[in-house]
Amino acid sequence: MKLFSAPIEHLITQLARLPGIGRKSAARLAFHVLSLPDGGAEEFANAILDARRLIKFCEHCQNLTDKDVCEICASQSRDKTMICVVAEPRDVAAVEKTREYKGLYHVLHGVLSPMNRIGPDDLRIRELLTRLEGGAVKEVIMATNPDTEGDATALYLARLLRPLGVVVTRLAYGIPMGGHLEYADELTLLHALTGRREI
Amino acid sequence: MKLFSAPIEHLITQLARLPGIGRKSAARLAFHVLSLPDGGAEEFANAILDARRLIKFCEHCQNLTDKDVCEICASQSRDKTMICVVAEPRDVAAVEKTREYKGLYHVLHGVLSPMNRIGPDDLRIRELLTRLEGGAVKEVIMATNPDTEGDATALYLARLLRPLGVVVTRLAYGIPMGGHLEYADELTLLHALTGRREI
Repeated sequence: MKLFSAPIEHLITQLARLPGIGRKSAARLAFHVLSLPDGGAEEFANAILDARRLIKFCEHCQNLTDKDVCEICASQSRDKTMICVVAEPRDVAAVEKTREYKGLYHVLHGVLSPMNRIGPDDLRIRELLTRLEGGAVKEVIMATNPDTEGDATALYLARLLRPLGVVVTRLAYGIPMGGHLEYADELTLLHALTGRREI
Repeated sequence: MKLFSAPIEHLITQLARLPGIGRKSAARLAFHVLSLPDGGAEEFANAILDARRLIKFCEHCQNLTDKDVCEICASQSRDKTMICVVAEPRDVAAVEKTREYKGLYHVLHGVLSPMNRIGPDDLRIRELLTRLEGGAVKEVIMATNPDTEGDATALYLARLLRPLGVVVTRLAYGIPMGGHLEYADELTLLHALTGRREI
C-alpha cells in the first residue's frame, strides 16, 4: 500500500527533485503546501509559472532578467570598461552584495567540464567575445569558483582573451575573513602566502 | 538596486516561506526551477495545484486523501477495533512504515496548545467521538509526540474517552533503538526504567 495518495506522492516526488531536498524533507514541504491558507498554494504555483514565463537572458550579459537588457547592463552609472565573468546567475548577486564592484557582468551559465561533456561551445563564450569587439572593455575579471573546473575555465578564457588586448585578472585567493590559519587547507594557505601584500 | 528581477524575487520569497528553507537556499532552489528542462517548471507547478485541488479529508479518519474514504479506512484487511490517534497526516506514514500496525487511524490535525490558542474545538475530536459511537472500537492508541503538548493532548483525550468504555493506551517511551544510555536525557531514561519489562 502506498503511504500517501497519488497527488501527494506526485508533489513529494517533484519537491524531492530540488537540490538538497530529500524525500523526508519533501514530504514535510508537501504537507506544508497543502496546509497553506486559501490561495497560498495557487500563489506558490503561479510564482513558479510566472518566473519561468517572464524570465529570459539579458541580450548583453546573459544574466536572467525579465527585460531584453538587464538593469545592470542598462544602467548609466556602471563602468562599461570592466566585465566580471561568473559561472552562474547567483554569482552576480554574490558580487553585487559587496557594493564595491561598479562594472558589468557576463554569465557563462556553467564551467568547462570534460567529465560532464561541457565544452566551450556549451558556455556563453561567443557572446562574451562579441561584447569585446568594440574595444570599450579594458579589463575582464575572471570570477569563477576557485576549484578545478573554475580555474580551468578562467585559464582557458584568459588565453582566449589576452590576444584581444584586454587585461584579464582573477579574484584573489586566500584565507577567508574570520577564518583561522589552523583550519585553512594547505593550498589556500599556499595561495595566501604567494599572494601576500605589503601593509 | 534589487539583486534579482521581480519574478525571481517573488519566486524566492515564496520558496523562503517553506519550513526550513532560508533565503539563500530559496535562491538556489529558484535558479534550479528556472533551469529545469522544458515543461519541468510547469510540471512542478501543476503538482502543487493538483495536490491542492484533489486532496481532501477522509470522512472517517480525517487523513488527507483524494477519495471520500481513504484507502486504509476502506480496506477490508484492517482491524476495525483499534484506532491510532496521531497529530498530523505525516505521522500516519511514520506508523505505517513499521508494517506492524493493522488497525485504523484518526488524525487530529494539531495538538492542544493554549500558547497558540488551539483548544479541543480546533482539533478533529468530535469526529473521533462519532467514530466511537457504534461500540465497535475497543482500543484507542494515543500516538501524539512525547512532548508537553502531545502528552497533554493524549491525557485530555484519555479522560474524555475512558468513560465511553474503550481502552486508551499510549506509545511506550524509552531509549530509541541504536541509542546510547550516556546520551539519553534523564526523563527518557526515567521512562525507560519505570517502563522496564521482563526478558
